[in-house]
Amino acid sequence: MPRVAIDVLLKREILDPQGRALERALPGLGHGEAADVRIGKHIELDLEVAEGELEATVEAMADDFLTNPVIETYTWRTITTDERADANS
Amino acid sequence: MPRVAIDVLLKREILDPQGRALERALPGLGHGEAADVRIGKHIELDLEVAEGELEATVEAMADDFLTNPVIETYTWRTITTDERADANS
Repeated sequence: MPRVAIDVLLKREILDPQGRALERALPGLGHGEAADVRIGKHIELDLEVAEGELEATVEAMADDFLTNPVIETYTWRTITTDERADANS
Repeated sequence: MPRVAIDVLLKREILDPQGRALERALPGLGHGEAADVRIGKHIELDLEVAEGELEATVEAMADDFLTNPVIETYTWRTITTDERADANS
């Protein structure tokens, strides 16, 4: 059963207050070297679908309810167990 | 200047109410084939550091203030412009 990771960010032309706040806080935290900080959602799930339907399924889910296509955009990829964001927990 | 993507999830042993809510909603939305849904943060930023210091810098940022190491875990990777989650916006 393939595991899918979906990363959602606000579109580039949309102000990201959370990212901006982090960017402005970084110098005071000893990390002044960061720029273009964007913060969004990371979603992982196992999908029980035929391989040929994976792309259509993920895109339908993302477009229909995982993102707001007016202001957000996303990428997705299949990941292995080792690539889970919680692999080392 | 390398761009870094950091994916943060709750540790596996920690209940993820947001992921659980999505998982339970999926059948009603026509996608009953999903399991082990986890939802966390996706952070992207440009980091102006020497290549040899990249790993230490990212891990210091993640451990110090981007995540709560008690309940969260993360992975990070460098990404190209095409791999930005907002590449197609």
